[in-house]
Amino acid sequence: MILQSQYKKVFLYKIDSMEKLIVIGGGAAGMSASSKARRLKPQMEIEVFEATKMVSHAPCGIPYFVEGLFDNEELFMTYTPEFFIENRKINVRTNTKVTEIDLNSRIVYAEGKYGKTKSEYDYLVISTGSKPKRLPTEGEDRVFYMHHPAEAVTLRQKLWSLNTIAIIGGGILGVEAAEALSERGKKVILIHHGKYLLNKTLDAELGKIITDRVSRDVEVKIGEAVKEIKQGGRTIVTDKGKYEVEGTIVAVGVEPNTELVKGKLLLGETGAIKVDEYMRTNYREVYSAGDNTESVNIVTGKPYWVPFAPVANKMGYVAGSNIGGEPMKFPGVVNTQITKYKEYFVGRVGLQEEEARKYGFHPVSATISGKTRARYYPGAKDIHVKVIADEDTKRVLGAQIVGEEEVLGRIDMMAAAIMKGFTIEDTFFIEMGYLPAISRVWDPVIVAIRKLMRD
Amino acid sequence: MILQSQYKKVFLYKIDSMEKLIVIGGGAAGMSASSKARRLKPQMEIEVFEATKMVSHAPCGIPYFVEGLFDNEELFMTYTPEFFIENRKINVRTNTKVTEIDLNSRIVYAEGKYGKTKSEYDYLVISTGSKPKRLPTEGEDRVFYMHHPAEAVTLRQKLWSLNTIAIIGGGILGVEAAEALSERGKKVILIHHGKYLLNKTLDAELGKIITDRVSRDVEVKIGEAVKEIKQGGRTIVTDKGKYEVEGTIVAVGVEPNTELVKGKLLLGETGAIKVDEYMRTNYREVYSAGDNTESVNIVTGKPYWVPFAPVANKMGYVAGSNIGGEPMKFPGVVNTQITKYKEYFVGRVGLQEEEARKYGFHPVSATISGKTRARYYPGAKDIHVKVIADEDTKRVLGAQIVGEEEVLGRIDMMAAAIMKGFTIEDTFFIEMGYLPAISRVWDPVIVAIRKLMRD
Repeated sequence: MILQSQYKKVFLYKIDSMEKLIVIGGGAAGMSASSKARRLKPQMEIEVFEATKMVSHAPCGIPYFVEGLFDNEELFMTYTPEFFIENRKINVRTNTKVTEIDLNSRIVYAEGKYGKTKSEYDYLVISTGSKPKRLPTEGEDRVFYMHHPAEAVTLRQKLWSLNTIAIIGGGILGVEAAEALSERGKKVILIHHGKYLLNKTLDAELGKIITDRVSRDVEVKIGEAVKEIKQGGRTIVTDKGKYEVEGTIVAVGVEPNTELVKGKLLLGETGAIKVDEYMRTNYREVYSAGDNTESVNIVTGKPYWVPFAPVANKMGYVAGSNIGGEPMKFPGVVNTQITKYKEYFVGRVGLQEEEARKYGFHPVSATISGKTRARYYPGAKDIHVKVIADEDTKRVLGAQIVGEEEVLGRIDMMAAAIMKGFTIEDTFFIEMGYLPAISRVWDPVIVAIRKLMRD
Repeated sequence: MILQSQYKKVFLYKIDSMEKLIVIGGGAAGMSASSKARRLKPQMEIEVFEATKMVSHAPCGIPYFVEGLFDNEELFMTYTPEFFIENRKINVRTNTKVTEIDLNSRIVYAEGKYGKTKSEYDYLVISTGSKPKRLPTEGEDRVFYMHHPAEAVTLRQKLWSLNTIAIIGGGILGVEAAEALSERGKKVILIHHGKYLLNKTLDAELGKIITDRVSRDVEVKIGEAVKEIKQGGRTIVTDKGKYEVEGTIVAVGVEPNTELVKGKLLLGETGAIKVDEYMRTNYREVYSAGDNTESVNIVTGKPYWVPFAPVANKMGYVAGSNIGGEPMKFPGVVNTQITKYKEYFVGRVGLQEEEARKYGFHPVSATISGKTRARYYPGAKDIHVKVIADEDTKRVLGAQIVGEEEVLGRIDMMAAAIMKGFTIEDTFFIEMGYLPAISRVWDPVIVAIRKLMRD
């Protein structure tokens, strides 16, 4: 073992080690994996290849950067490459793209500021993340994707120079982009093929509340399918109309970035890399973590894919722990989502009602509207809660909340409940805190659950 | 069965029923019990005796009333007596004090605006609540207890007329009173015998943060034992000093109000009425619910007493359900507490570290200080989290949080986790939501848990 004091502060560390870990992709999952492995194996050589200039970066921050809530792009990174190199002795190679992987010979080929390199590994982590789904366009000089923080400065510069902007896609990213641009005073047209905004987050009752709210600031086009994007993003033709704008943001979802390993590693039915609960692929020494990785939905027991940073971080942590010699299992996901639009917070966890039916449950649900504070406490806001359970087993399958206060924590609580298979009655008895300034003696979640229990 | 349309809107309903339920005490538990029983048995006669003029009242609101956040005392009541009488056909007898119960003959004797009455019952619910612990005083014209909403108007009138007020007791009520009076511009001396404020809610690390914060507005006297209260509340002598004030609030805790049943019903070791999980006392047809009732601590499996409104409501609901013929069990408590002092929210659930040791666990803990928002999102506040687990079983035993945002929900989540025996690792994997505007990609709770997992 080499003591930390023996390292010299040079750009890349040469470690006289028996083991080498290579990580492809320096986002949340990759840096969590390498940090955890480093902690457990101080003598292991660790090399991270990252195609952009940023590591441990936060794509979730892009809408807020575009809104102008902060200006320093370095803030997108939890830690800088230099931090990882100097403090954690992790050889981060930014602006270096992996061009090929030879899984049988355990070799990674890369190209970047060090020229072409060839590196052998004992362990490999694939953490290449996700990539935005693209739409075919006729020219694309005014077509934008809000995906990677490394492009945020350029993106923002362009968007700020435009006045009328179309957003295609009314999911979380589309709604967050709408908020950002409307706060910047832009004229926004939000075109969404679903029946209401956030239809993959919320069921109709709650989704309509958000759709109405967004419609107050933004021209929302619901139930419209985009047929063509022309003139480099200046003309959008849908099945119902034609829109002339100055630029177009495409926010129609993401997909697992598996290019490097397609045909080499086993992919699951979701299109993401298949792993066991230790985050191992079909090659024992090759792990996969983050948005490129398939998971299991805890509620259904079926393969599922959740591209969110906290999940990616934990997958990376688990991979790093196993590589570091401390066995750990990833339990799967419940698809917790939370976003905001202006004063409204939106959260959901578990299955939506229709999704539950599709998976063979017999869902029953209750939706209530309540207040966030005691009757006598000033400033109470509306809060809307939907809970979904299985009629046969009484197990809670999902929860959705729209409101102006304390939405996040209630969703977190339901995430815990759903992960461990709480029944309706178990949930009723969760001893939620009560403080008149921020809750009700019968909490809105408990009121919804009580309604479900009665019916 | 009598249909609702057959009822006439008169003050008391005469129902030709085979069964009669009497409820003693019209607070949270009593009204929940009677409402649930009414729903299940539309034909049952239900009579509630309430010594004050208020039912389904909210003592938690008194500090905010004193602060002047609302003026209408009717708001203390979730529903008025008239609502229960007219809408739920529950004969609420306000200002009527039960003077004696004959458990063997099933008779309740009362005295009030209808004179002396004698009523037989088939089912009885004792929901007499709690009462403030009193201190011996030499005169008491300026000694105040913040306990019952029915006295709130008089209390507030008196407190507002004073300038310098002592509060004895630095628990939740004492700190809430300090906030209210300091917001009213009063000079407040808060005298507390513990080593820091809220010492029955928080461990020292977090308790000191609150003590420091309160000390900025209020003269806080820590570790002082009150020896004498003299001159009707104008002089307080402690083991360390003597304070001249214009009035004194005594907030040294509450105790179960069991006067009516002492020597008749079995009390538990906590001094509250002993019940089984159906909320039944040692008399099969006599139930107990609310602050007068003992519960079981889910973490320890031992008798415990938690005098909080949401617990009282659920106990009442369970009693009412059982009386109504739908068997239901109350699972016990985890002692969720939440309060605020100005910009700080304080929450806890489960056991404190010392308490855990006392109950035979081998507690290990981790305390961290974090931020409430993403690094790049403006307005992040400090948040402090302590988590406690058992070294042997890895089970999470308790959590404490002090912070300015989203404290409640994180505590609710930990309540769910602790109720169902989550281990440290289970908790690590709770898929908490992440939204840069109100959380961190590694949530402060998960960071604390991760620290515990490492150590």
